[in-house]
Parts: sequence; C-alpha cells; structure tokens
Amino acid sequence: MSGFSELVAARYSCRAYRTDPVPRAAVEQILEAARLAPSACNRQPWRFAAVLEADIRARLLDEGILPGLGMTWAAAAPVILALGMKKSFLTHRVAPLLSDVEYPLLDLGIAGEHAVLKATELGLGTCWIGWIRPKEVRRIVGWPADIQPQSLITVGWPAGPRARVTPRLPLDEIVTWR
Amino acid sequence: MSGFSELVAARYSCRAYRTDPVPRAAVEQILEAARLAPSACNRQPWRFAAVLEADIRARLLDEGILPGLGMTWAAAAPVILALGMKKSFLTHRVAPLLSDVEYPLLDLGIAGEHAVLKATELGLGTCWIGWIRPKEVRRIVGWPADIQPQSLITVGWPAGPRARVTPRLPLDEIVTWR
Repeated sequence: MSGFSELVAARYSCRAYRTDPVPRAAVEQILEAARLAPSACNRQPWRFAAVLEADIRARLLDEGILPGLGMTWAAAAPVILALGMKKSFLTHRVAPLLSDVEYPLLDLGIAGEHAVLKATELGLGTCWIGWIRPKEVRRIVGWPADIQPQSLITVGWPAGPRARVTPRLPLDEIVTWR
Repeated sequence: MSGFSELVAARYSCRAYRTDPVPRAAVEQILEAARLAPSACNRQPWRFAAVLEADIRARLLDEGILPGLGMTWAAAAPVILALGMKKSFLTHRVAPLLSDVEYPLLDLGIAGEHAVLKATELGLGTCWIGWIRPKEVRRIVGWPADIQPQSLITVGWPAGPRARVTPRLPLDEIVTWR
C-alpha cells in the first residue's frame, strides 16, 4: 500500500465475488487488525464470527437478513464475518445514563472498519450488510444471549473491476470550522 | 507507512501533546479520509466540527465533557474534532423498526476511525473522548438541533514516546470460527 488515503480510496462495497476460497491466514490477519482497535475504556465490546462453512453462510443470507433487499450477490462471498456486541454492565447500563451516547456501537464500527481496511489491503473485496435479523444471526452462528449481532461483512476476491465510485458529500457540507 | 497492520499497531490513545499547531492542510487530509468512509445506504450521517480556536476548545473541555474524568491533558491538543450524527428520517425512524440496529452510530465509528488512522499516518496523536455532554457540545460548536454530538477526538503532536501498549483480548476470545 502506498498510503492510508490510497487505501481508503481503494475500499468500496464489493457486490460481485469469485467463489475462490480466502485463506484462513488472511482472515486471521483481518481479525487481528480489528482486535487492535480502540474502544471506550478499552472494553473491546466486539465479537466476530468468521463464517467459512457454505451451509452456515447460506443460512445467514437466507434467514439472517431482511428479505427483499436483493442480497443474492452475497452468496458467492467465501467468507462472512458476523459482528456482534458483547453486552456488559458498564457500557450498557451506566454509560447511557451518564452521557446519552452508546459507545459500544461506535466501537463496533471502528473495529469492523479495521477489518475492512485490512481486507482491502490484501486485495479482498468487502461489503458491510446492516439490514440483519439479530436474533436469527445469533442463533445461526451460535452466540450466547449476551452477544447482540449488529452487522455482517462479506469478504472475498472481487469478480471484476470496481463498477463505480459512490459519490460523497463535499467536505464543506460535513465540516464546520471553529 | 509500511502497511495497514503497522498503522493500526502505531495508533494509540495519546494523552500528552505538544502545543505546536497542526497545519490546517493536515486537518483537511484527516477529514478527507473520514469523508470517504462507507455508511448504510451511503447516508453519510457524520458531521465534524474542526475546532482550532483555543477559547472554543477550552469551553468544550470545560463544559462539553463530564466532570471529574481527569481530562486536563486534552487542553494541550491544538485541534479537537467534534463528531456528530445528522439525524434523518430513513436511518433514525425506519431502520430501527426494521432491524433493531442503529446503523448511524456504526457509521460514525467508521468515519471517525478513518480520521484517527489518517492522523496516525501523519505522525499525529489522537484520542477518542466519549464521555461528552451532547447538548453542551452542540451549543459550543454551533450545530443545529438535528445534529447529535457523539464524541470528541483530540489531535496533536505527541509530547513524547508512547507510554505503554494497552492490552487486548486474545483473538480466540473475540472470534468464533464457523
């Protein structure tokens, strides 16, 4: 990688994958990048299920996401990461009372994006899938009740070149200088 | 930067800054990395206030964060980024009904961490500060009511070497393989 800005520019939501497997060592590198993410009070609320088995991936896509969203492309991805939040007393009961802010969700976004950017560096495509059915995802991956599924991330080798660059708001619409 | 894993390993929560200013061009590069972050349905719910003025930074630290948390170190940081969530009908009213998941908070974590990692690459220190008073932060930075402050991020030149490496849970405690 030439630099972080190039990595950020290279990342996109990949919705076309080759079915070639992703080596487990690559998935481990991706998860290791997530592991080192910062979190409020270093609580590390993230949990990952790395789903490589085809039948479990199929069930995640069949039962674990909302119907009618046109997610059939995800079936080709050889890896699906489920991202869940480990509930704890401090961050889930105390913090919202003090500050109205749900830190663990911010933390999960941070850790998940570490994974996504490491995958990008390895030449892999990724896509965050947010429209999940949390209870079904929990059951399918076998998580206990204190882990709340929040998102899926597909990981695989892109089937072709990037189709398009999704537009973004200009900087002056998202930044106030003070 | 040699690679993304090295960048992730180099990032830490910096709580000791030199007061030397950070060039506005560096802050713009940091915000540009955040601008390109992915978000649910590309809604880009993040808003940033880049606070360089000393008196506004002092008010943020005095009135905008919870008292008694020992945040005096933050006063030396020449830049504070406030990170807020732009509320919209789709993501705030519809999505939680459908799926129990608050995507915008995940999205803010993603964008904020893009900023943090770009700052790290530039040799800058950063620290996420979550224990804020959202209403006070909104008032101090001058945001309208539809922007909900979620976090502050200090940015500045580290005053010395990294003090310690904060431990993390081992990979097998955060990952389930399926």
